This record gives sequence, structure tokens and C-alpha cells, in this order.
Amino acid sequence: MMIPRSHPRYKSLVRRERLVQAWKAGIVVPEGLIAHGRGEAWDYLFGEETSEPALVAEKAAAAYLLTAKRPVISVNGNVAALASREVVRLARIIPARIEVNLFHRSETRVRRITRELERVGAREVLGLRPNARIPGIESRRALSHRDGVFGADVVLVPLEDGDRAEALVRVRKTVISIDLNPLSRTSQSATVPIVDELTWAVLNACKFVDELKSDETEILRIRRAYNRNGNLGAVYSFLGWRLGHLRRGHGPGGKSSRRKGRRSSAR
Amino acid sequence: MMIPRSHPRYKSLVRRERLVQAWKAGIVVPEGLIAHGRGEAWDYLFGEETSEPALVAEKAAAAYLLTAKRPVISVNGNVAALASREVVRLARIIPARIEVNLFHRSETRVRRITRELERVGAREVLGLRPNARIPGIESRRALSHRDGVFGADVVLVPLEDGDRAEALVRVRKTVISIDLNPLSRTSQSATVPIVDELTWAVLNACKFVDELKSDETEILRIRRAYNRNGNLGAVYSFLGWRLGHLRRGHGPGGKSSRRKGRRSSAR
Repeated sequence: MMIPRSHPRYKSLVRRERLVQAWKAGIVVPEGLIAHGRGEAWDYLFGEETSEPALVAEKAAAAYLLTAKRPVISVNGNVAALASREVVRLARIIPARIEVNLFHRSETRVRRITRELERVGAREVLGLRPNARIPGIESRRALSHRDGVFGADVVLVPLEDGDRAEALVRVRKTVISIDLNPLSRTSQSATVPIVDELTWAVLNACKFVDELKSDETEILRIRRAYNRNGNLGAVYSFLGWRLGHLRRGHGPGGKSSRRKGRRSSAR
Repeated sequence: MMIPRSHPRYKSLVRRERLVQAWKAGIVVPEGLIAHGRGEAWDYLFGEETSEPALVAEKAAAAYLLTAKRPVISVNGNVAALASREVVRLARIIPARIEVNLFHRSETRVRRITRELERVGAREVLGLRPNARIPGIESRRALSHRDGVFGADVVLVPLEDGDRAEALVRVRKTVISIDLNPLSRTSQSATVPIVDELTWAVLNACKFVDELKSDETEILRIRRAYNRNGNLGAVYSFLGWRLGHLRRGHGPGGKSSRRKGRRSSAR
């Protein structure tokens, strides 16, 4: 498929194309493409930048992951397609286990995603031979590993379904979500909801893990200072401000209001 | 694919499944699935109901379509998948021509969509043998018909790409868009931007066409009274109110705040 370079959303269309390629490779399902579209709309509303409250949540996530006894990162098709390298890097530096968990589960797809993660450096990826079930979830979406999500104390669930996120909170896990919709059941139920674009959220988490790794006092201070409700409130305020900004005709792209780079805004 | 009935968004997932089926039938492209996801996010923000300003725009659209000399409705893959019956009904009662226009054009897909429209009662669908080009658009997306969009005075473009919408406005057509994103270039450039879910927008337009058909004075009054900038401003205000509502923790579903039915709210 040719995208004319003159198209004003060329970059976004190219990124979308990447997901379509992963769908052709059998890693992403059609429902995953629709979910990606929802994320695009939210990202657009947020001005395609990492908000200050998102950075605070990303730092808190790093602190929780570093103090976990059994941290696990859950990976689905969209995550593998868009951020496999970033996720594998985060897993390595924490260190955390990786488990493949699919809403539309098929053995073939678990295998393809495992292979993709291994290709970019993951080791001992869980998911293929589940030996436990998360209570309170119907169907094969409950399948898990005792060494993985089932036995974890802290779970990072990027782009997670609301049902599963809620079930994980019910069994008293510390759930860190990455979801651009601040109103989704996933964001509403997570212990640490990160409202940011997947790739940037994981990259920022990596940066904070590197920063905090050898500073136990600071880790504990951040865990104590983090207030999830206050943080989500700040996300809503930011969204309200953005909407007002857009209404006053500053344009949706927000180029002028944009900081120098998404990554550089991390402190 | 089985969706457990206990899933809280069962209805939305089933609707999504319909689009996936149309994709399997070669009517919808993967990029169309992503676009649908963007619409879902907006619809969710709007509380999945037709706003008052959307109704005003839908009534104005009916007035413009009824006074047009050569009204044309443009149909793409997603429109055919989600609202072919509704579109064909609207075309019959105006009456208007239908032209198939695809962003990712292939002869096979134009033929499939034409067949789907004919299956639900459309006659003389244009699109297969284009004999004109819309100026100012690159690639095969410019292809059109002298009897269709190219020669029209009023064009209804549901779920239209921003490039094409802008090009149509530049050649001085009255462009009526249906797009849930009030900030998109399509909504920003259209003469009558309707910010509502596709199916409801078309059904409401049908209702207003029936109501107004024999009342020329009222048609002219509505055309005069309609103020596109004021209407878009009201859409933004509604969105701001919704966001505040959601922030105050009334929940995203908005069931409690929901009127008795989307259709019944039409006046």
C-alpha cells in the first residue's frame, strides 16, 4: 500500500502500517487493529505527548517494579507488534519475567509472539504451557503460569482488557497498566494506571528504572508519595486543558505547544 | 470467535465483530478497522449518544440534501459494512446518487461494495468506471464520476479522509461530513459537519428528510438558521461537559445520564 508523502498525517499512517504488517504476520488480530484505533484517538486528544501526570505514574511504576519480589510483564499481540524491543529491555533491567497473554488466544499466535520476543533478545518467555488459572475470568483468557502472572506480586499489563485487569486487582496483585484511555476499566482499576502511549511509557519506565536502581531511599520515597487518585485527577485536568486549548482553535496537532520531544520531557 | 456474554462491553464487541466479518468478506481493509477504533473512542467520550448539536447538524444536512440539484452520497468500505441499508434508504428518499469511493482503492473491492449496496436495494451505484478526477488529490483517490461526486453540488461524505473532504470544499461543493472526531480535518473543513455515530446520523437524516420533504418554507428557514461554527462550538461545549461529568466519577458508560434511546432524542 502506497501512502502519498504529501498526506499531513503521513507519520501516523506509516506507524499504523506497521501494525497492519504485524497483522499480516499473524501477530495482531483484527480486533487488535480496532483497539489501536481507540488508542490513536486518545493520543490525538492528549496532543501526542507524554503528560506530566503520566511521567509521575511511570516513575512510580519503576519504583514498584524495582521493589517487587516477582515482577512480571504481560505481553499481547499489539504490544509485541509495537514495542517488543522496549519491553524486552525493561524486563532485562528490572529484571522481570515476560508472559504472553492473549485475549484471542491461539497456540500458534502465542508461539509467533514468543518467537518475536526471543528474536529481540527475550529469554524464557512464558505463555505456551500455562499451568494455572487467574480466578474470576471466563474462557481461555484465564490461563497463566505459576512462575508468571499467576504467581507475581507486581504485574505490568500494557494494553490490557478491563476484565483481566480487574481480576488481577481482585487477587491483590499490584497492577501497573498502560492505557491511553483514562476512563477505561483497566485505568480505573489498576494500582498504578499509566495514561500514555505504549512505546513512550515503556521507554520512560526504562529510564526511571536506570535512574532509581541503586537509590533505595528514593524508591521508597516515590512509592510513598505516589497517589493514584490524585494522579488520575491530574490526567483529567490535563485532558480538560487540552480540550479547551483545541476549542480555542490552536489546532489538533499541537506542534506549537509541543515540547521539544516526548522523551526529553521526562525528568 | 466467542465473546463471553458476561463481558461488560458485549454489545460493543459484537458490533466490532460485524466489521471484522466485513473485513473477512473483503469489504473493509485493516486500516478501516483502525479508523473504526478511533470512532469508538470518540463515541465513548460522547457517552454513546447523539448530542443536541449533532441533531441540529443532521436537520441542516437534510435541508441541504433536499434543496440540492445533484446530491450524491459517497460510500467507502466501513460505511458499507456498518450502514449500507441506512445509506440506501437515505439515497432513495432524497433522492440522491451513490458513488463508491475508496481510500485504498481496488477494483475488486469497489465491485464487492457495489454488490453489497445492490443487495440491500441500491440502483445504479457509481464507482466502477470513473470518468473524472477531483482536482487537488493525489493518486487514485481522486477518481470520480461526472454523474457522481465530481458533478455534485451537495455531497454527503460519511467517514471521509481529511484530504478528500478539503479538496471537495475547495471545488466549492457543499460538503456534509459524518465524523465522530470534531477536531478532524474533515469536521473542520466540511460545510455541515455532523459529529455523530454513522448509523444514527444517517437514520436521523432520514427522519428529517421525511419530515421536511413537503415543507419548503421550513427547509429554507433551517438552511438560514444553521451556523456551522456555532454548531461546532456547541459540540466542543458538550464534550467539555461530558469530560467534567466523567471526571466527577459518574462513570464512562453514562447509562444513568442516557436518554431513553438515541433515536427518540431526535426532535
